[in-house]
Amino acid sequence: MIVIEKLFSGDPRTIARAISQVENYSPHAAELMKAVFPRTGKALIIGITGAPGAGKSSLVDKLALHYKDAGKRVGIICVDPSSPFSGGAILGDRIRMATLGLDKNVFIRSMATRGNLGGLSRATVDAVAILDAAGFDIVIVETVGVGQDEVEIVKAADVSVVVLVPGMGDDIQAIKAGIMEIGDVFVINKADREGVLRTQKELDALLSLAHRPDMWQPPIVKTIATESKGIGDLAVAIESYNDFQKQGDAAISRKQAIAKWRLLELLQERLLSELLARNGTGERLDKLVTQIAQRTKDPYSAVEELVSK
Amino acid sequence: MIVIEKLFSGDPRTIARAISQVENYSPHAAELMKAVFPRTGKALIIGITGAPGAGKSSLVDKLALHYKDAGKRVGIICVDPSSPFSGGAILGDRIRMATLGLDKNVFIRSMATRGNLGGLSRATVDAVAILDAAGFDIVIVETVGVGQDEVEIVKAADVSVVVLVPGMGDDIQAIKAGIMEIGDVFVINKADREGVLRTQKELDALLSLAHRPDMWQPPIVKTIATESKGIGDLAVAIESYNDFQKQGDAAISRKQAIAKWRLLELLQERLLSELLARNGTGERLDKLVTQIAQRTKDPYSAVEELVSK
Repeated sequence: MIVIEKLFSGDPRTIARAISQVENYSPHAAELMKAVFPRTGKALIIGITGAPGAGKSSLVDKLALHYKDAGKRVGIICVDPSSPFSGGAILGDRIRMATLGLDKNVFIRSMATRGNLGGLSRATVDAVAILDAAGFDIVIVETVGVGQDEVEIVKAADVSVVVLVPGMGDDIQAIKAGIMEIGDVFVINKADREGVLRTQKELDALLSLAHRPDMWQPPIVKTIATESKGIGDLAVAIESYNDFQKQGDAAISRKQAIAKWRLLELLQERLLSELLARNGTGERLDKLVTQIAQRTKDPYSAVEELVSK
Repeated sequence: MIVIEKLFSGDPRTIARAISQVENYSPHAAELMKAVFPRTGKALIIGITGAPGAGKSSLVDKLALHYKDAGKRVGIICVDPSSPFSGGAILGDRIRMATLGLDKNVFIRSMATRGNLGGLSRATVDAVAILDAAGFDIVIVETVGVGQDEVEIVKAADVSVVVLVPGMGDDIQAIKAGIMEIGDVFVINKADREGVLRTQKELDALLSLAHRPDMWQPPIVKTIATESKGIGDLAVAIESYNDFQKQGDAAISRKQAIAKWRLLELLQERLLSELLARNGTGERLDKLVTQIAQRTKDPYSAVEELVSK
């Protein structure tokens, strides 16, 4: 069991164990999150996404150091759903911990496991809530990849940062609508590379086409994360959107959308786990899976059989 | 209603309407898929993924042309979950249709919509099954992004192709475990760029570390899609893995894994839609969403309330 007082005092081992519980959807997870929820809402939650190769990890590390130097406690959650094993992720965490300094003011954790029930995005927002309740001032959620889960995770942050690099060229369209829409702040990292002006122009053009319901004009920040350049500017841009988003109707409808998404994700997971826990369902499921694999039954008929009992 | 004979005869408008039905999880979708399923299993399904900027669309178009020139009928499904609106996707389809030639032997469709119930991956595999049943010899599924949904979609193909470009450098690790594991064939596109040798070396090193249960050694193909170079080699590599995967226990366990994933995805969607269809649930859901957004209720308690009735 998690000692909730130790969690609220920010004890790293207790935090790590609490996150494992929500990651594994353990029987204690619901109780834990009910206790955690009333203590949340204080941290500034920053979502950072972008294509592989954009240098997100370096940027996140430098941003975390920036906040740490300013006396803040910083939590980092890295979502890497493409990695089915947490071994590599843990190794990566250790390397990054060494850069960031091993103390109580920085916590880093990768989320890579995804069970039968899905639920990586749900587990991620739960982990963010745990860090929030544990007294971290800043929680950075970093996602690798630009899939739907990642978009949802980043959308659930207070401020969403989209990282680009010069020379993405012909595929900047690939990150058009969806990603453009979620970016409250844009970063052109590796800004010492060729093509930075062109990327900025393309980005400006795309942003001028976008119609945000809140009328916010997302700033574009240029950084060279490996040389710690532009990190202060990024923090200022994040702060300015955070101040902006606290007012107005758009903030309320955004919070509603996040709440709805969280509720539906959790509901799906719960309904599936209840069905699978029913006596004999596991065996019947295995049999149906084999029939589908052998094409003697279609998945829709199989679902009807499972649901009808 | 879909006229199933017209679907099986390959009528493009009927195919398009059938895909819309599975995309929207319409009441007819289950009946439709039950009719479609026994007709599937003939097409070669190729999954293509990779980071934005890797030139996947050009590669897919050229590969499709290659097959078309060989007298095959080719279907293309583009999954772009980062785009919440299908308008842009449809425009993109039209542009690509012009390149590919507007005839009955090529069909292209973007899947971008994702409803309340999720289910984009389920809708995608259903769309692939529809094209298979409609008599297409080759179905190419192209995903933008490297999130978990995309990984699952590509895994469900007969042959999975991962596209890289030279100079992804420090973030090649970002595509390590998960993506490396799903690639049956690797492509280094834009192979006229600097750094192609280094990328190949890094890829070789990563592949030599990976342990595939089926002992397959994934080939690495170099292409310049914009100049149609290397496309024939890619088709040969795809064919060689397809021949290989038809034998052996690994093929069976792969088919089992795909069947299980499809079944669970569909089951989740069904359970949620049933619950939401119950009288009064919509209203209660809205109320709970507001309470969660205002932090007067936590999502776990809200789920219990919805499930308990």
